[in-house]
Amino acid sequence: VKIGFVGLGQMGSAIASNLIGAGHELVVWNRSADKAEALIARGARLATTPAEAASGEIVISMLADDRAVERVTFGEQGILSAAARPIHVSMSTISTDLADRLTAGQSGAYVSAPVFGRPAAAEAAKLFILAAGPSGALDACEPVFSAIGQRVFRIGERPSQANLVKLCGNFMIMAAIEAMAEAMTLAEKGNVSGAQLVEVLTGTLFSAPVYQTYGEILAEERFRPAGFAAPLGLKDMHLVASAAHALRTPMPVLSVLRDQLLSVIAQEGEEIDWSGVALAVRRNAGLQAGGAL
Amino acid sequence: VKIGFVGLGQMGSAIASNLIGAGHELVVWNRSADKAEALIARGARLATTPAEAASGEIVISMLADDRAVERVTFGEQGILSAAARPIHVSMSTISTDLADRLTAGQSGAYVSAPVFGRPAAAEAAKLFILAAGPSGALDACEPVFSAIGQRVFRIGERPSQANLVKLCGNFMIMAAIEAMAEAMTLAEKGNVSGAQLVEVLTGTLFSAPVYQTYGEILAEERFRPAGFAAPLGLKDMHLVASAAHALRTPMPVLSVLRDQLLSVIAQEGEEIDWSGVALAVRRNAGLQAGGAL
Amino acid sequence: VKIGFVGLGQMGSAIASNLIGAGHELVVWNRSADKAEALIARGARLATTPAEAASGEIVISMLADDRAVERVTFGEQGILSAAARPIHVSMSTISTDLADRLTAGQSGAYVSAPVFGRPAAAEAAKLFILAAGPSGALDACEPVFSAIGQRVFRIGERPSQANLVKLCGNFMIMAAIEAMAEAMTLAEKGNVSGAQLVEVLTGTLFSAPVYQTYGEILAEERFRPAGFAAPLGLKDMHLVASAAHALRTPMPVLSVLRDQLLSVIAQEGEEIDWSGVALAVRRNAGLQAGGAL
Amino acid sequence: VKIGFVGLGQMGSAIASNLIGAGHELVVWNRSADKAEALIARGARLATTPAEAASGEIVISMLADDRAVERVTFGEQGILSAAARPIHVSMSTISTDLADRLTAGQSGAYVSAPVFGRPAAAEAAKLFILAAGPSGALDACEPVFSAIGQRVFRIGERPSQANLVKLCGNFMIMAAIEAMAEAMTLAEKGNVSGAQLVEVLTGTLFSAPVYQTYGEILAEERFRPAGFAAPLGLKDMHLVASAAHALRTPMPVLSVLRDQLLSVIAQEGEEIDWSGVALAVRRNAGLQAGGAL
Repeated sequence: VKIGFVGLGQMGSAIASNLIGAGHELVVWNRSADKAEALIARGARLATTPAEAASGEIVISMLADDRAVERVTFGEQGILSAAARPIHVSMSTISTDLADRLTAGQSGAYVSAPVFGRPAAAEAAKLFILAAGPSGALDACEPVFSAIGQRVFRIGERPSQANLVKLCGNFMIMAAIEAMAEAMTLAEKGNVSGAQLVEVLTGTLFSAPVYQTYGEILAEERFRPAGFAAPLGLKDMHLVASAAHALRTPMPVLSVLRDQLLSVIAQEGEEIDWSGVALAVRRNAGLQAGGAL
Repeated sequence: VKIGFVGLGQMGSAIASNLIGAGHELVVWNRSADKAEALIARGARLATTPAEAASGEIVISMLADDRAVERVTFGEQGILSAAARPIHVSMSTISTDLADRLTAGQSGAYVSAPVFGRPAAAEAAKLFILAAGPSGALDACEPVFSAIGQRVFRIGERPSQANLVKLCGNFMIMAAIEAMAEAMTLAEKGNVSGAQLVEVLTGTLFSAPVYQTYGEILAEERFRPAGFAAPLGLKDMHLVASAAHALRTPMPVLSVLRDQLLSVIAQEGEEIDWSGVALAVRRNAGLQAGGAL
Repeated sequence: VKIGFVGLGQMGSAIASNLIGAGHELVVWNRSADKAEALIARGARLATTPAEAASGEIVISMLADDRAVERVTFGEQGILSAAARPIHVSMSTISTDLADRLTAGQSGAYVSAPVFGRPAAAEAAKLFILAAGPSGALDACEPVFSAIGQRVFRIGERPSQANLVKLCGNFMIMAAIEAMAEAMTLAEKGNVSGAQLVEVLTGTLFSAPVYQTYGEILAEERFRPAGFAAPLGLKDMHLVASAAHALRTPMPVLSVLRDQLLSVIAQEGEEIDWSGVALAVRRNAGLQAGGAL
Repeated sequence: VKIGFVGLGQMGSAIASNLIGAGHELVVWNRSADKAEALIARGARLATTPAEAASGEIVISMLADDRAVERVTFGEQGILSAAARPIHVSMSTISTDLADRLTAGQSGAYVSAPVFGRPAAAEAAKLFILAAGPSGALDACEPVFSAIGQRVFRIGERPSQANLVKLCGNFMIMAAIEAMAEAMTLAEKGNVSGAQLVEVLTGTLFSAPVYQTYGEILAEERFRPAGFAAPLGLKDMHLVASAAHALRTPMPVLSVLRDQLLSVIAQEGEEIDWSGVALAVRRNAGLQAGGAL
């Protein structure tokens, strides 16, 4: 299949690479073209505008935030200005509101397909894909999905439903981190190490990747460099809150998460991992990083 | 080993039964003696006081709350009034404060060994045991633990450490329930069913028993009869809060949990499951049970 | 002084009327011109565009939200397209972000002058005015302020500072309402009427207008018709949160207020007063409106 | 009237002194008798036990907490062991639960009469008295109340109602402090000084003693020595929470207050004023005491 790909960050590059590996013909675009070099060396063609990348049957975008997606879609020489009418597959974590506007605004079909998985999972073609949109368009995307992910969840006909599920997932992760941080801080003040608590949790009822991954990060206080920076986490929680606001849904745990993220950013700067909320929890209990009082 | 067993509720009866099955000699006591019948039929001897049950090498107590444990231990004809000096193994979910007082007050060794697992796990001898106390005493308890559980976590030398870990675990469960309830309510208002969200979560990063078990309960709104009643959940969160208070550890997610449990009890009565907090979440979003507005 | 006035809602009309009463020459504009009739009858001139209203020394805008202010300022035939360079005095409750953009974008001087006071206070020329901007411009506005308010607080040189103080004030009001609602609900469940509690509070340490006014509303459950509708309150709390987000300031009480406002809107609809959060508090305690269980 | 007085702390001494000044005959008791010297010099008689102090028509107790009140009442040689049957007037800030037990346990009449007012107000006989109990007993107490306070609020027939109102009042004060602290921190990060914000608030809708007193303390960061120490504030919020728990009333603002008090105590120690929660608010926003970043 002839596929356009817009946005070659860490995630985008890994996904695009797997598409080439699966035999697809790729036309790629990125704001700074140098990020495309490795893909070009493997046979991808460089587009000079998002519109040019949107000349095939499918165009995929994988970008940092709403603003970037708006620019490459609605902007000058954006995807919508292309003569072709490709299916636009948006994999970015964006607001449900933008997903709805993208749905309304497309000339061709629009599919939301955000993913769960860190860059390593993207490289290994092990992403979980949350897909929503017209079922015909989803069917047409199957060759793409099978090349990059381990499982596709079809969420519904309305694209923004997939974005909502993605946002709920990120909320759940952040909630698990904060709950663990609170429990580990309490345990530590009672002379049980965080590592010991994590061992018990993941060895019993909480034997899931999210607790294993973040339990280890929290126990070792590996907050820098950030795997996922706190301001990005805050941005995502803000997207959840915008959906909750529009849908009139009070979410008190979400409120706690936002305050804790603000707190750690105010105290530790913008470069810390979102799991660094543990430092805010610890500080409020009179503990410093590293366990010293 | 000659073992006394005090407290034959659902959990205690299942544990005692497995001890008999493993060949131990049991002397049992319960406030209402009729609960002991099935065990006596299988060879257990009935004690008329907790003190009488405390005549062997080990006496286990498995009771509802601090007050019940205080009564059978410090009360008239309680465990401490026995002539023998058995190891007291307290499996109840009690406060760290009481565990410390039990440690100080015992004539023999004292071990805290609270468990994770519902009655079905107790029957199947699949409990997870959190054990803390003098290592000699813990060694002496191994035949007991191996007869009733699938794995023992040794937490430390101070018995109350095991209770603290147990409380942290219950806090983590309740936090997972509340977070799921918030996410599912948001999803539902955005036209994604709770069941669908649970499928995605448990199929990706949240593939742990706690999300599978409670995800299903929440999706089906199976809150009655209660598997673990909301007032018991509130009691446990209160024990966590007491520890957090004593250890000067602010836990904002815990605060949310307590308010939500109060809310669902105020609205639905004392008989509802602790996962019924979902009803409070839903109501605050303008939804009724069953999804109707 | 020749003054333009843009925005003739309840507040704007009352203020404009007092300016005429003080002898100023008014040119007024409103989206629906019929709102201007009473003022025209008293000598005001009707402008057909905001730009036309901005032909004198001062132009005042008093509008519902950021969007409305943006439109009359930056929009076609907006204030900025006027040939004259009047001082723009913005009295609306807007975001600090917009105030900063208005400051940067004006051709003439820009002053923020939001007010405290309900329509009755506006009619009586008893508003409290929070003014910030270049001191020369503030001096030039004194004749305006003295005609409409009882006291001017000069906050600083940067206009958005006045908006920030206004937002803080609205946050404080909402916080006082929520705290009273929680206390009154607790009291009532303990058989002390809300009215009695309010009498004690306002008769002792809380002898301030905000407790007198809202204490009475809460005690009598006078939530409809809305004096200040919950969605407007939510909008204001959202503006506070945006400032708090930009300034990296966690505000946990603010988070509670937003969730409670969402809750009452989800349950009671958009027409209820912002003090109707008391109904959400009551419902979470198992009470209905009117005190029945 | 012959009056016994138990508990000669700062508040108790000031109140007892005013009773002597009004011509009453006093028998006083305190755990450490040296606190009684000034009163004895003015004609009071020293009792060697609380029971001995309870030999007149009325016995007043003014103590630090539930435990102290329980000891002087139910303890050996406590008030209840006296041969006389005086009216027991309990002015301490205690739990509603203890007030109910005191009501049930008294041989004579029992009245709860907690007060609003700091030591200076007690000295000036300007206390606000919240009184509840049988109306005959309240009538009999009028000579006492008029000698020590500026106004009596009769709350009801059940003594614990007065305690509940007192607790609600303390909750309201703490809520006002926290809300101010949040608003002042936000203002400061936006370059408006806390003092300036307080001036606006107290000059407009918040012209009440609580905002004047604490606004000044917060603006000047006068948290040591404590006027009312954070652990006492936490104890009071704990009493409110106990009542809220028993009455099944979720109070999310109260939950915030408790976490903030825990936080400031964990960070600043036990000697800080309860208004020191502002330091926790500031720290979470990345500010240090004294305004430095």
